[in-house]
Amino acid sequence: MFHFTATVTCLAILFYFFTTIRVGKARSTFGIKAPTISGNPDFERVFRVQMNTLEWMPIFLPSLWLFAIYISDPIAAVLGLVWIAGRILYMTGYSQAANKRGLGFGIQALAAFALLLGALGAIVWRLIHA
Amino acid sequence: MFHFTATVTCLAILFYFFTTIRVGKARSTFGIKAPTISGNPDFERVFRVQMNTLEWMPIFLPSLWLFAIYISDPIAAVLGLVWIAGRILYMTGYSQAANKRGLGFGIQALAAFALLLGALGAIVWRLIHA
Amino acid sequence: MFHFTATVTCLAILFYFFTTIRVGKARSTFGIKAPTISGNPDFERVFRVQMNTLEWMPIFLPSLWLFAIYISDPIAAVLGLVWIAGRILYMTGYSQAANKRGLGFGIQALAAFALLLGALGAIVWRLIHA
Repeated sequence: MFHFTATVTCLAILFYFFTTIRVGKARSTFGIKAPTISGNPDFERVFRVQMNTLEWMPIFLPSLWLFAIYISDPIAAVLGLVWIAGRILYMTGYSQAANKRGLGFGIQALAAFALLLGALGAIVWRLIHA
Repeated sequence: MFHFTATVTCLAILFYFFTTIRVGKARSTFGIKAPTISGNPDFERVFRVQMNTLEWMPIFLPSLWLFAIYISDPIAAVLGLVWIAGRILYMTGYSQAANKRGLGFGIQALAAFALLLGALGAIVWRLIHA
Repeated sequence: MFHFTATVTCLAILFYFFTTIRVGKARSTFGIKAPTISGNPDFERVFRVQMNTLEWMPIFLPSLWLFAIYISDPIAAVLGLVWIAGRILYMTGYSQAANKRGLGFGIQALAAFALLLGALGAIVWRLIHA
């Protein structure tokens, strides 16, 4: 069973949902009416945090589960928590200034690639030894 | 087996695909050439329906499946149908005016959170009782 | 087991990640600073390749896996490779001009719909015969 990975999946979705709520709040704070998404840099940075998190979901979630299935449920979950921590850093940094988004971005990218390349390695190993 | 949830997954994807087709049609109706995505509010509302549906797919699909696996295939499928119904209301409302998107949005958000929080509760319960 | 489909999933994610890297490169090439995403058509086409690939991920990945589970792992993997090939054509075409994106788009759409409708057919067949 994959209880740890399932838990981290729910936490990642809750974090992602939180980034979408911030966009709604930023709309009212900066007076940006839907459907407008550009024009105000302060709003755009909050919007880009959500978008970038969305952009990484199809990298993160399938990699997380393939890693869990092919390697280990608890290790996948730990790497998933690192990914969420990197995402939180990215969000708090980018909200202040565009050039403060690097550290969090790097951490979440490393965690996601550890999951993806670990899973790919394990899958290819199984294919060869099957 | 998860035949009901699998069916609803296909229906949700077909609905989402329909929202992407509407963007293509709106491009020709309002004369917005690719790659432009902003400038005309009538086009932007159609575009935002697709984008918002995309934004909710990584919330909805994993929650749907975790609920199906940890709780019940048919109940997950029913909540999934409610989500699609809310999405359709959101699409028809938002296409008319930005302030008519609330009801459908609320319904689909409730369905998605019933799936997510239900699944999370069941996962944590299993973790504790394992 | 689904080793072939799992491999193609990793390849699709790697390709998608490559389209996000191209956006970062295009930012520096065309001098478009984050969080801006519009204003320069050359940048916008590179950005739209990534966005469109992202937009198709929730159509492609669930369809690929439902097809693999309900019909066949190797056939799903072959259709998945066709999808990636269509996506590569779409990327190289769109990068040159907006009207050169049609062929690759058509190929990846056909592959995705073969996966989606094949899976849906097999699921409904099982529901009826269960």
